[in-house]
Amino acid sequence: MKLAVLKENNDPRVALTPDAVGKLSDLGFDILLEHDAGAEAFFPDDAYEGAKLMDRQALLQEAELVLSIHPLDDEALEKLTEGTVVIAQFQPFNDESVVDKLRRMKLRALSLDMIPRTTLAQAMDILSSMASIAGYKAVLEAAHLLPRYFPMMITAAGSIRPAKVLVLGAGVAGLQAIATARRLGAQVEAFDTRSAAKEEVQSLGAKFVEVEGAKDDSEAGGYAVEQSEDFLKRQRAEVQARAVKSDIIITTAQVRGRKAPMLVPASTVEQMKPGSVIVDLASSTGGNCELSEDNKTVQQHGVYIIGNSNLSALMPQDASQLYSNNVVNFLKLIAEEGQLKLDLDNEIISGAYITAEPAAATEE
Amino acid sequence: MKLAVLKENNDPRVALTPDAVGKLSDLGFDILLEHDAGAEAFFPDDAYEGAKLMDRQALLQEAELVLSIHPLDDEALEKLTEGTVVIAQFQPFNDESVVDKLRRMKLRALSLDMIPRTTLAQAMDILSSMASIAGYKAVLEAAHLLPRYFPMMITAAGSIRPAKVLVLGAGVAGLQAIATARRLGAQVEAFDTRSAAKEEVQSLGAKFVEVEGAKDDSEAGGYAVEQSEDFLKRQRAEVQARAVKSDIIITTAQVRGRKAPMLVPASTVEQMKPGSVIVDLASSTGGNCELSEDNKTVQQHGVYIIGNSNLSALMPQDASQLYSNNVVNFLKLIAEEGQLKLDLDNEIISGAYITAEPAAATEE
Repeated sequence: MKLAVLKENNDPRVALTPDAVGKLSDLGFDILLEHDAGAEAFFPDDAYEGAKLMDRQALLQEAELVLSIHPLDDEALEKLTEGTVVIAQFQPFNDESVVDKLRRMKLRALSLDMIPRTTLAQAMDILSSMASIAGYKAVLEAAHLLPRYFPMMITAAGSIRPAKVLVLGAGVAGLQAIATARRLGAQVEAFDTRSAAKEEVQSLGAKFVEVEGAKDDSEAGGYAVEQSEDFLKRQRAEVQARAVKSDIIITTAQVRGRKAPMLVPASTVEQMKPGSVIVDLASSTGGNCELSEDNKTVQQHGVYIIGNSNLSALMPQDASQLYSNNVVNFLKLIAEEGQLKLDLDNEIISGAYITAEPAAATEE
Repeated sequence: MKLAVLKENNDPRVALTPDAVGKLSDLGFDILLEHDAGAEAFFPDDAYEGAKLMDRQALLQEAELVLSIHPLDDEALEKLTEGTVVIAQFQPFNDESVVDKLRRMKLRALSLDMIPRTTLAQAMDILSSMASIAGYKAVLEAAHLLPRYFPMMITAAGSIRPAKVLVLGAGVAGLQAIATARRLGAQVEAFDTRSAAKEEVQSLGAKFVEVEGAKDDSEAGGYAVEQSEDFLKRQRAEVQARAVKSDIIITTAQVRGRKAPMLVPASTVEQMKPGSVIVDLASSTGGNCELSEDNKTVQQHGVYIIGNSNLSALMPQDASQLYSNNVVNFLKLIAEEGQLKLDLDNEIISGAYITAEPAAATEE
């Protein structure tokens, strides 16, 4: 099975790292690598021992499976042979038409972001791996811009109080942000609609702020559910009361397939201290802050606002490493004795296999 | 006594923060503030309650004392009345001619970087305040660029080893860099020519690397002394052996009034892992790394090299706060009952008063 690894457009990460070549070879895969695919993640071509280096055109024609982080553009997809397996994050929950398009092209698509977030699938959970990096990086990006210290400093020239950090949403990204801000010595408060998050937040040394009346999302497969406007209003009031005392706000509240809830209105930003920093990890789906702009850092009312839903790309080497580990674990599941086995009775595979027709269940 | 506070050129810091206005008023100072002097450090004009806001020209004419971080340019100095006291960092140890120039202009100069680094003067030690920020910021700037995690991460997708940080020079900046890198979970090794640094390094959880045969600098007033070429050669060999395993090198080795020792040659950079980061805090005096360029971040052999001897300017709010605290403590020493008293019998004052002629001892 010829597995092609492509160089990403506008993202320094790579979907497969050198250490995976040997592991996948044992599973019956031959790795075809696009020139410089890992270069920007600091994995040079010559580190991929055992992989065949090719240029993009030849590789698209020869591939039986194509692996990337972001889906290929249509031009590249059209060059693939019918029946080729494309593995990427297709985000069908944001745009369902992608499934029809791939079916029309007669491609078989495995969407890694559709793997159910069960205990069994944890080792393949790219969303968690990348969210964890994003949470860590959010704190470092904030510290990079903040004109103040994070830790308390007691010096001969006087004392500096620790920075106050407010984290909205204590999922994987939020928890990692809390942990990192605590490592750096900040005082941290965190919100989450799931009361189950309380214990996790507190175990990291942060204060858990409760807003009453959140909708239950215990049946939502690990994703947050949309809350009522009334609830959001109360939450915004709580955020506002704390934002004026905060040096940093990190927002991570996303609802899969929907617009992100707006938690930090312009009026709150206006009341924050000049020099404070907001990092909005939900900027690609509308943003948790009214004033954030996706993929930009702006300054409004003296407050820096970083809008970035792809922060893991700013730490490309370890991000690629963890992504690649997730991919290898997934490929172990679908490869058997050198053959591809897309068993739709397996809920991980049926979750990811977005182009499978009901009839496809017996096809493989 | 009219004390003028100027807006810096090319530096967002300000030498006096709003909380100092009241304290200095009690000492008999009237504060004249240049418009927007603190704006870039996030201290807006209206925060300086009790200060008189003026434009630069009027302020230079009216001032009896002029306070800034960097020395004024000649054009501004010439506008001052004879006998005006100028307070800044004049660095006469780098260029002695500055003293003659100020004398010719009949200005009285107090150079804050000439205050002896004794226990008594700690509360006025701007070099320590700024070096501490630089050490903290060096780690954060490195973390900003590093494509890897700092802490060890044990995840469902596999483990990530902690980053390895090598710190050269365990003075104020080096110790703060060690502490910050440790906070973030890195493994840290540190060099220093002073064996007295060993205990401090170890108490921060880092490993102390010894190179035999360093010159004693216990009589150098807290500054490092120049080492022999033979010693530097052995030190470079030790650095090289560790650099290849390091993710980050932070260099802080400076010798006052001389070129910084070259500790990381190009051949060492070449052997480092791609994506590694070097932060050279000695770049303004020639650099500890052969390939660093002052005030630039370059990439050489896949390694990022940040050359910046003024990192405290990247954290302008707290840097200004601590600088201002140091200044207030110094002004307390030289102001007595609303009058300036430049008592040359006081070693702190005689150290700072660089334009004092021997005869000036009786002048005040």
